[in-house]
Amino acid sequence: MTGQKRLYFFGDGKADGTAAMKDLLGGKGANLAEMTNLGLPVPPGFTLTTAVCAEFLSHGGVRPAGLEEEIDEALEWMDGVIGARFGDPANPLLVSVRSGARRSMPGMMETVLNVGLTSRTLPGLISRTSNPRFALDAYRRLMMMYADVVMEKAEGIEPDEGEGVRARLERKLGDLKRRRGVLEDTDLTAEDLERLIGEFHRIIRKTLGRPFPDDPREQLLGAIGAVFRSWNGKRAVAYRRIEGIPDEWGTALTVQAMVFGNTGDRSATGVAFTRNPATGENLLYGEWLPNAQGEDVVAGIRTPRPLSRSGSLTGGDRRGRGGKPRRSSSAPRRRPARQPELPALDEAMPEPYRHLVEIRRRLERHFRDMQDLEFTIEEGRLWMLQTRTGKRNGVAAIRMAVEMAEEGLISRKEAILRVRPEQLDELLHPRVDPRAEGKAEVIARGLPAGPGAGGGVVVTTAEKAESWAKRGKKVVLVRTETSPEDIQGMHVAEAIVTAKGGMTSHAALVARGWGKCCVVGCSELDIEARKGIVRAGQRTLHEGDPITVNGTSGTVFAGAVPLLPSDPQSSPHYRCLMGWADEVRRLRVRANADRPGDAAQSRSFGAEGIGLTRTEHMFFDSQRILAMREMIVAETPEERRKALMRLLPYQRRDFEGIFRAMAGLPVTIRFLDPPLHEFVNLDSKQTAALARVLKVPPSKLAARIAQLHEQNPMLGHRGCRLGITYPEISEMQARAVFQATVALRRKKIEAIPEIMIPLVGTVAELADQERIVRRVAAEVRDQSGIDFPYTVGTMIEIPRAALTADQIATRAEFFSFGTNDLTQTTYGFSRDDIGSFLPQYLARGILPADPFQTIDRQGVGALIRTAIKKGRRIRPDLKVGICGEHGGDPASVEFFHQAGLDYVSCSPYRVPAARLAAAQAALGDEESGREKEPERQKERERQNELVHHGGVA
Amino acid sequence: MTGQKRLYFFGDGKADGTAAMKDLLGGKGANLAEMTNLGLPVPPGFTLTTAVCAEFLSHGGVRPAGLEEEIDEALEWMDGVIGARFGDPANPLLVSVRSGARRSMPGMMETVLNVGLTSRTLPGLISRTSNPRFALDAYRRLMMMYADVVMEKAEGIEPDEGEGVRARLERKLGDLKRRRGVLEDTDLTAEDLERLIGEFHRIIRKTLGRPFPDDPREQLLGAIGAVFRSWNGKRAVAYRRIEGIPDEWGTALTVQAMVFGNTGDRSATGVAFTRNPATGENLLYGEWLPNAQGEDVVAGIRTPRPLSRSGSLTGGDRRGRGGKPRRSSSAPRRRPARQPELPALDEAMPEPYRHLVEIRRRLERHFRDMQDLEFTIEEGRLWMLQTRTGKRNGVAAIRMAVEMAEEGLISRKEAILRVRPEQLDELLHPRVDPRAEGKAEVIARGLPAGPGAGGGVVVTTAEKAESWAKRGKKVVLVRTETSPEDIQGMHVAEAIVTAKGGMTSHAALVARGWGKCCVVGCSELDIEARKGIVRAGQRTLHEGDPITVNGTSGTVFAGAVPLLPSDPQSSPHYRCLMGWADEVRRLRVRANADRPGDAAQSRSFGAEGIGLTRTEHMFFDSQRILAMREMIVAETPEERRKALMRLLPYQRRDFEGIFRAMAGLPVTIRFLDPPLHEFVNLDSKQTAALARVLKVPPSKLAARIAQLHEQNPMLGHRGCRLGITYPEISEMQARAVFQATVALRRKKIEAIPEIMIPLVGTVAELADQERIVRRVAAEVRDQSGIDFPYTVGTMIEIPRAALTADQIATRAEFFSFGTNDLTQTTYGFSRDDIGSFLPQYLARGILPADPFQTIDRQGVGALIRTAIKKGRRIRPDLKVGICGEHGGDPASVEFFHQAGLDYVSCSPYRVPAARLAAAQAALGDEESGREKEPERQKERERQNELVHHGGVA
Repeated sequence: MTGQKRLYFFGDGKADGTAAMKDLLGGKGANLAEMTNLGLPVPPGFTLTTAVCAEFLSHGGVRPAGLEEEIDEALEWMDGVIGARFGDPANPLLVSVRSGARRSMPGMMETVLNVGLTSRTLPGLISRTSNPRFALDAYRRLMMMYADVVMEKAEGIEPDEGEGVRARLERKLGDLKRRRGVLEDTDLTAEDLERLIGEFHRIIRKTLGRPFPDDPREQLLGAIGAVFRSWNGKRAVAYRRIEGIPDEWGTALTVQAMVFGNTGDRSATGVAFTRNPATGENLLYGEWLPNAQGEDVVAGIRTPRPLSRSGSLTGGDRRGRGGKPRRSSSAPRRRPARQPELPALDEAMPEPYRHLVEIRRRLERHFRDMQDLEFTIEEGRLWMLQTRTGKRNGVAAIRMAVEMAEEGLISRKEAILRVRPEQLDELLHPRVDPRAEGKAEVIARGLPAGPGAGGGVVVTTAEKAESWAKRGKKVVLVRTETSPEDIQGMHVAEAIVTAKGGMTSHAALVARGWGKCCVVGCSELDIEARKGIVRAGQRTLHEGDPITVNGTSGTVFAGAVPLLPSDPQSSPHYRCLMGWADEVRRLRVRANADRPGDAAQSRSFGAEGIGLTRTEHMFFDSQRILAMREMIVAETPEERRKALMRLLPYQRRDFEGIFRAMAGLPVTIRFLDPPLHEFVNLDSKQTAALARVLKVPPSKLAARIAQLHEQNPMLGHRGCRLGITYPEISEMQARAVFQATVALRRKKIEAIPEIMIPLVGTVAELADQERIVRRVAAEVRDQSGIDFPYTVGTMIEIPRAALTADQIATRAEFFSFGTNDLTQTTYGFSRDDIGSFLPQYLARGILPADPFQTIDRQGVGALIRTAIKKGRRIRPDLKVGICGEHGGDPASVEFFHQAGLDYVSCSPYRVPAARLAAAQAALGDEESGREKEPERQKERERQNELVHHGGVA
Repeated sequence: MTGQKRLYFFGDGKADGTAAMKDLLGGKGANLAEMTNLGLPVPPGFTLTTAVCAEFLSHGGVRPAGLEEEIDEALEWMDGVIGARFGDPANPLLVSVRSGARRSMPGMMETVLNVGLTSRTLPGLISRTSNPRFALDAYRRLMMMYADVVMEKAEGIEPDEGEGVRARLERKLGDLKRRRGVLEDTDLTAEDLERLIGEFHRIIRKTLGRPFPDDPREQLLGAIGAVFRSWNGKRAVAYRRIEGIPDEWGTALTVQAMVFGNTGDRSATGVAFTRNPATGENLLYGEWLPNAQGEDVVAGIRTPRPLSRSGSLTGGDRRGRGGKPRRSSSAPRRRPARQPELPALDEAMPEPYRHLVEIRRRLERHFRDMQDLEFTIEEGRLWMLQTRTGKRNGVAAIRMAVEMAEEGLISRKEAILRVRPEQLDELLHPRVDPRAEGKAEVIARGLPAGPGAGGGVVVTTAEKAESWAKRGKKVVLVRTETSPEDIQGMHVAEAIVTAKGGMTSHAALVARGWGKCCVVGCSELDIEARKGIVRAGQRTLHEGDPITVNGTSGTVFAGAVPLLPSDPQSSPHYRCLMGWADEVRRLRVRANADRPGDAAQSRSFGAEGIGLTRTEHMFFDSQRILAMREMIVAETPEERRKALMRLLPYQRRDFEGIFRAMAGLPVTIRFLDPPLHEFVNLDSKQTAALARVLKVPPSKLAARIAQLHEQNPMLGHRGCRLGITYPEISEMQARAVFQATVALRRKKIEAIPEIMIPLVGTVAELADQERIVRRVAAEVRDQSGIDFPYTVGTMIEIPRAALTADQIATRAEFFSFGTNDLTQTTYGFSRDDIGSFLPQYLARGILPADPFQTIDRQGVGALIRTAIKKGRRIRPDLKVGICGEHGGDPASVEFFHQAGLDYVSCSPYRVPAARLAAAQAALGDEESGREKEPERQKERERQNELVHHGGVA
């Protein structure tokens, strides 16, 4: 990095950086520069680049040569701008030291405020502000943060539970407040604080073995090192794994002049969104606190106040705007605000408020997206401390995208790219059944932080949430408040409920990011996490008790209240966006559905056919499984055929139902795939019972079952290998399909079957099964006198099929990539057994992602491209789709688009996301004509920005 | 096939065809044409092409239009040549109708002789030959064959055991002979035969519901159809599966004028080889019978006579020839001939014999290879009925190839191509330990039809041989004589023993083809196959009793006599041939060996290094397995390291032994590969015992074992996944390797370790393990002060590794293809579970061969080529080998040569075959410069020619 600029100034109306320099300056630093250049009131400062961080960390925490001198120069420049001087006893400049990565990692790294306060500068601050209590409080805050972050954590001292220096200092502060009988820090007197500071010095020296540093420059350099080091803190590393952020990025670091919202009643601090992040409503929206520092707003100790009567986060969506209908089911219905008479900022400080409204307008015009702002008012003067693209839930993302496009702020294509496909899931989330909701027992009300509904059993710790979820339990995590340590447990919970915190609390932000059902600030709840007890008024819940959460209304119910699937079509913004998406996408989207109900559901979500009907699921019904088992133990083709004849009518009926639901659309039916032993997974008692029913000797049955056992069933006697060794099975399935087709065609319902042969590895296998299918089709046609179209194709799910796709295409009319099995065989990974090493592989970066979630482009993807090229060379009109889990994964959908597939098929609930992802992939093509991954990635990063709550000065 | 010539004449000194037209005329037809063109005495006839057969069969057995007319014309032409007329009552022409495929399928298809004899032509034959007994016997033979082959089998009538028409006729004939008190058919009088023929007519009409056809043309057309149809007979289809002959080839068919060896004492018939097919000795060699038809020679009813005193099949190798040493260990030691005074042909019929010797010379010069001849002498006149390249065993093949090259008949390159690599196996076959042999109880002596030795338990039916062998038993098949129905059982037997038959009997020919130990003509043996009893003089053996067979001396011993491995180096012909082979091959050959003894063995077979040392086998020793298990149940890296430290000295010692055996040659060591549960495969009792030893609670141990269970272990936690999750294991293994290296280098023994990381799928996996290896190497180097070279590479055994080989080559210094696992993952086949469908796949032609035996060039091969190309693009000097089972398969070796590998590695006993296969592959390149498969295939076909014993007229 020699020769590269390491330090970027901003302040006094001009900045070295711009918003485009996020990779170098981090999101925070880049946007501070941009705001400065826009002429907005930003306290001056400078940003050290991510490259400095990377060098610092790779050299074991040694500062690059010459950096200290550059920092000294920068401080001098700041002195000049702000008129105060770092370390000056008379008029001291205080600074904040904050992290800021390319992508926001909220709360995952450290911040140190009030740096520069020492025994020599404290008197200067007192005299400058004439507010000893404020100045002493600032010193007290610096000591707590610094001792914790710089002196303890950055040194790698890992305290036992409750024994860290911060906890000791907190306890001391708590004791003092209790002794003084006050609730808020601000109620302590200067004398109280002076004594407390003395105690703090003693505790720090005792706990950490060295005194609190009294030199401003030592403080600053220590804080810089600690913040850089926090990039490799446990939480930060864990978060990066989940979010897929590379370790080598490093964080930028901003040193900025402090401004204070807590100097008195003419000061305040707050956060704001330029539009409502929960509903998308086009209205300034936020919270503030008078005489406070930023951390107070998000800490949930004091209840924040609305910016205006109409723009309160607790105020609800009362006005129809932008010509949109008033009643939108996706707009949360709000409970009445808890403290209706808290003063709004527009009333309490009208001038700074007007200034803020004006800044909001300028920032939205400039950034062309919803902004998330942090501001401080010091003695009546507004300072902007941060702007970033605001995090939003899916409902809001859709509404903003559509309305901004209609306002002309962005184009329709941009609107399509603004919504992450996963965000659509929120609209598809279950709702609480309104008929049941009225009768359900409400145990708490709070802020609707994450829409949708979720139900499960109460857990009060993240660890419990994780372990129960691993065992298949649906859990609702109920916490007093959440912290970054809880994210794993939050991730697996069906819903999150907190007793404390507002719409910008940790729980709310994280839930919104994931589109997860969440209710925060349920002040009625009293939670004893260790005992696993939740008290709600008179009622006591224990871990394991079922509850239901309505995240749209902010209500928590006792018991398991029935949920209903959502109806996204009722949202006009959704309909509009999906319409635009459908116009631009080239990939068709189908659904994987095995039952008529699922088929209908998927059609309502926009599926354009069924890409996978797994016929085996049809056999597990109790009536059918018997015939299935009889078939399995049959010793001759005749016996087998007899048992199969009993299954035929069931299969036919299933197919009729699915064909009816998908009338006029193609339905791909996969022939029997799993190994037969899956149908006779019986203990000895069940075996005996089955033997009685089947009238065979138990020993013979047991022997047959044992014979079916396989070492590696995944690679065993399954797929078309079954149909080849037991042609009667394929014959029955073909007959059921074609008889159903004919039955519907008699009723003028257009059934379009596509027969899919699984696990083909050589063209001879496919040819064998194709012969059976075509013979049966001819027989059914002859018997019924009704003609019908159909096609025969194959799954491409083992490498050999992909490698010999040219041969296979001589017989297959379509390919459908079974990417689950193809991933298993390409990696040599058994999905069932991967748990013993995959977590370590991901944690250590040996795999960048779970290849069963997101398609492996280099390995599996190479086979897919090969198969398509070879297949289409032989049969140019070969239809190519994919029906593995990856069909619903947006990143994978993009690959499938690029690879030239005709369609993706995914579970019904992922159909809308796939449609949008397909549209985004098509737009990616259009823009660059080629490889679009970097741009998509950037857009995704933009969308991923989360509010950082390291504290607002 | 319209427009294609369908019918090829030969006779009267000229022929339409040549020897090069085997694809069209079959081996037999093409060589009859060639002999005719050479001016040899061949009865005239014509051949219908294989294409006619294919058309006939694909049209459901309907003769192609116009074919009958062409046949009629052909018969007229034959009439002209031979001076007799088909169907002429006065001077009738009789013909034979025989199959003849591109590759010989001995006894697998049908033949009909004497076609054209009817009630109207019989008197003509009698008067022409003045031999009523002969003529009636010919008619009797025709009836038996025709009723069986044409009237019953070709119509698809499947008789129950012993109820077929042939069996009924045989019984009738037997009854008559018993009544008349005669042993041989020729002893029956004309009157006997006349009466018998009357009976035959009745039996045929009764059994088959229609009379024996009395029209010559009907007989001929029926016979032609039946012979064509026999291409799809059960035996023929089964044989094609084993030999890998495509179903679509079809057979050619030859109609030829009959000549008779059984008209009286001036007639004879016989078979001959131009060199000894068992030893390779350069001498005319064969058997004959006076007054006989060809089938009598091979049937074993009459004892055939030697052609000359010196060239008798039972005469032994008494003369040193061609400058070769007299005592060759590969020359069978012969017992004295059973009937020492049987007259030889050179004495009994000196003129025809001289003619035969002259023809032998001309044929060897012409075909430049050993020929297998059939001849008939009719009234003193020699007729040649067949020549083909003669089948030989491995010992003979090597001697002939070397001697012919030294004689200048062929080039050295041709000599190399003349020996099938598999044939070398015979020289590596075990021998009976000579020290034990003297004391062993001889129960029978016979003809040494297949050299080497084999031991196992007696079975008397092919079915039993198959079923016992399937269960892992080594069996020796003991039969009165063998028939094509027995081939499956013969295939699995360790050795074959027959009571009847000579060196050209079915058993002898088949065993020679496979290089299998075989003794025929043990006339002391009396076998009751149904009861499973073998009587040898006073001794009675039952199925399940152990016996041992010396196929080189022709002796059968009671009990399990110790066997010794063979010492091929003692054969000068072998040494000479392998020397030539080593000069031309480019591929290096290594061995897979896990123990010092195996390593030394492989080195004596010419291995140029170890390509695979499986370290896990070293852990199964009883002392070591305990430490291994302790390691597995360890809960912390420290505990694990402790247990591993106890394994370290064992591993080091193993490596020292192997390095010593391979001093100066590279040794590739694969790190631990199998899933850990393979080491704790315990029942509950064993678990409890182990728990006591390890001092852990049994429940905890059981839980750990249960935790290790996997759904698909093949795709589970194994290979480098172990080394990554338990880095201590790789560390210990690396340390053992390098400490052993240093220990030997101290003693000036050059150890060259190559560390191989298994089951790599991504370069990150390899990089992780490589880091450990290089760190430990540096440590050992520093500690010992001794420097040593080593390399780190990887197995390429899962598709993703092949697909991303360019990335992997950035870290790997060598690739070794693990084709076993690569085949498993590329096909999605579990080798352990394939038994449930592979037999059907092979039987139905869905797979052309077992892909675990012979490399799948299209699928697995494509991945191999991709990996080499990508790997060498990054690292041009990348060393590439293969260490799967395919390394010893000649067809696969050819592919590996073509694909550009540096070496193959195979089991020690396959090393010589691999060396020869590598030389042949290199010669293939040289000749055509490119794709050599067709030529190799042809050569293999040539070598595969087996004597067809449908009967010699």
